[in-house]
Amino acid sequence: MFYPPKRILMGPGPSDVDPLVLKAMAAPLIGHLDPAFLNLMDNIQQLLRKLFETNNRLTLPISATGSAGMEAAFVNLIEPGDSVTVCVNGVFGERMSDIVVRSGGTLSRVETSWGKGPDVDAIRESLLLNHPKILAVVHAETSTGVLTHLSKIRELLNEFPETLLLVDCVTSLGGHSVGVDQYQVDFAYGGTQKCLSCPPGLAPITVSDRALEAIHSRKRKVQSWYLDLSMVENYWGDNRTYHHTAPISMNYALYESLRIIHEEGLEQRWNRHHKNHLAFVAGIEAMGLEMLVKSRDRLWSLNTVKIPDGISDGIVRAKLLERFGIEIGGGLGPLKDKIWRVGLMGTSSQKKNVLLFLNALEEILTEEGLVLEKNAGITAAERIYV
Amino acid sequence: MFYPPKRILMGPGPSDVDPLVLKAMAAPLIGHLDPAFLNLMDNIQQLLRKLFETNNRLTLPISATGSAGMEAAFVNLIEPGDSVTVCVNGVFGERMSDIVVRSGGTLSRVETSWGKGPDVDAIRESLLLNHPKILAVVHAETSTGVLTHLSKIRELLNEFPETLLLVDCVTSLGGHSVGVDQYQVDFAYGGTQKCLSCPPGLAPITVSDRALEAIHSRKRKVQSWYLDLSMVENYWGDNRTYHHTAPISMNYALYESLRIIHEEGLEQRWNRHHKNHLAFVAGIEAMGLEMLVKSRDRLWSLNTVKIPDGISDGIVRAKLLERFGIEIGGGLGPLKDKIWRVGLMGTSSQKKNVLLFLNALEEILTEEGLVLEKNAGITAAERIYV
Repeated sequence: MFYPPKRILMGPGPSDVDPLVLKAMAAPLIGHLDPAFLNLMDNIQQLLRKLFETNNRLTLPISATGSAGMEAAFVNLIEPGDSVTVCVNGVFGERMSDIVVRSGGTLSRVETSWGKGPDVDAIRESLLLNHPKILAVVHAETSTGVLTHLSKIRELLNEFPETLLLVDCVTSLGGHSVGVDQYQVDFAYGGTQKCLSCPPGLAPITVSDRALEAIHSRKRKVQSWYLDLSMVENYWGDNRTYHHTAPISMNYALYESLRIIHEEGLEQRWNRHHKNHLAFVAGIEAMGLEMLVKSRDRLWSLNTVKIPDGISDGIVRAKLLERFGIEIGGGLGPLKDKIWRVGLMGTSSQKKNVLLFLNALEEILTEEGLVLEKNAGITAAERIYV
Repeated sequence: MFYPPKRILMGPGPSDVDPLVLKAMAAPLIGHLDPAFLNLMDNIQQLLRKLFETNNRLTLPISATGSAGMEAAFVNLIEPGDSVTVCVNGVFGERMSDIVVRSGGTLSRVETSWGKGPDVDAIRESLLLNHPKILAVVHAETSTGVLTHLSKIRELLNEFPETLLLVDCVTSLGGHSVGVDQYQVDFAYGGTQKCLSCPPGLAPITVSDRALEAIHSRKRKVQSWYLDLSMVENYWGDNRTYHHTAPISMNYALYESLRIIHEEGLEQRWNRHHKNHLAFVAGIEAMGLEMLVKSRDRLWSLNTVKIPDGISDGIVRAKLLERFGIEIGGGLGPLKDKIWRVGLMGTSSQKKNVLLFLNALEEILTEEGLVLEKNAGITAAERIYV
């Protein structure tokens, strides 16, 4: 048996999983066509709709991790030659671009620098030029900590009613409002291992009726058999036609994590993520460190801190892990060695984690030669909780 | 919390999972780049190589269920226009054909009727005509209970040394020998939920060096980002480059199930599957029922029984489930209402399950009006175990 070391997961995901969810996963297996499992599937779909804030019938978990949710979105919506505009301001916009090309789409990229939100005027220009079938944005860019304001994207898209809106919610779902119906999102996907605090392995998706129509009226088959929603929907819908064997235990876990989420309440959960984020930022700034992203565009679930001059990313993260059992993430691409990515997602978004982290970081940075006012970070964070 | 009903899983998968594997899955999460997790990945790869009977370096679990393993095989090996010959004698040969076309391959099918093994002469004709890049066979056709004899396929392919051999081992891996190196299989994939007795959610694959060369020398990117082995191998190899978040808990489970398999010993495990299969068949035939597949071509892990005239598939399976908690599978496609599919896979391949099933079937069939000699099935099965 593998006995994992005890960690506090404050990286870009997975986040800490509630013991009840772990317990749910340890239940004996039943078949994927067992009446009891079919009933569980219905319940999962209902709770997912509530989580996505939507009435979309086609709402279900894809049987693979979040990136497969991304791939499912594009391969189902794109037919060869379809024009797609992708807003790129981090790793996941880059990944979207890659998948668009692999899916035979004609790609237009609207880039902003990593750490900034998308530029609405630049998007408008691209839409005017390309009249794309799809506009794709990353709601929560896990590589930079930037939140895209969907209200502004929706407002813009009202000028382009033909364009479908595709949104990556992997790191926001369950931590921020995603407002799928409110912002008329046509295809949204998430992952289980972020603010849902369920192990990685499933990608919840939701598809609007008009996106589903686009899928149903395709001329060519979807290039992926595994992700072809016209077949997947028949297993999750009334027909219960066998497609592939659903990951049974992962669905037990997803159900339990959704139950816990709705027991807490979505609004309360978002507020908790917001408050812990504010305390975290107050602490970081009181220590004299800087956040990468400007206040208005910050994710609550993934916090990016600039690494001070002269401090080694690797040494600090290794000490956090070895001495405190705390996992955080490093920067990717152009932000490698420049930022830390600190997740406060789901179960991991807790006052005690914020305080422990600030304390640990102060201790390590002091060791590494920074001169810091003792307890300034913790004191500032605690003020937020009063 | 969802509390699943108690079942005995004797269908086409999932099979019953050892309590130790369930316990492993309930362990707390760690990150997918945690040193302890990377070490676990190495151990999983080593145990998988042993299971596939291979030294192939590229041996790892794909982060989705068995069918994604199938898709991974074709999308990585096929470039548009590549010729592929598929042996079709059931659902999974059909699925392969579908995926070949979606992947841009030029498909030739060699069909035999459902319940029969592939016809070597017909395959030779197709190979002579098409000189395909790939020959694909289903080692264990879950829809019919037919085993393909890989020794014969290998012998034939020695006449066509350019053709890569792709083998679906989903229902054989861990229950039958798959002999990847012995039969020079170039790409094999399995599923966790059959003879490995691990929950569904991962697809172990192994890739020969020459298949890997074919992948590395592709002119076009693999159409699936999620399944692109040129990236996946960098996460599982020495670089540890982040690709997607691995399903952590499923990998805990896979490791534990592999540990249990090798503790039992592969030969012992195959023998156990063989003996329980023989006892099952002896019992079925002593009851006056017939197996679908002729003796030589029968899978040990998935047993197909012809439904006697006048007996309703649905009624019998419902009674098995409701009264005995036993799940078995019905027929698919042309075999719908004509056969039962009884899995004896991994942990489910047990003497007590064989006897319980024969007893339950006798009771139900008698109720349904068949005249059966009392205990004939059980007596015949018990003779095998002496």
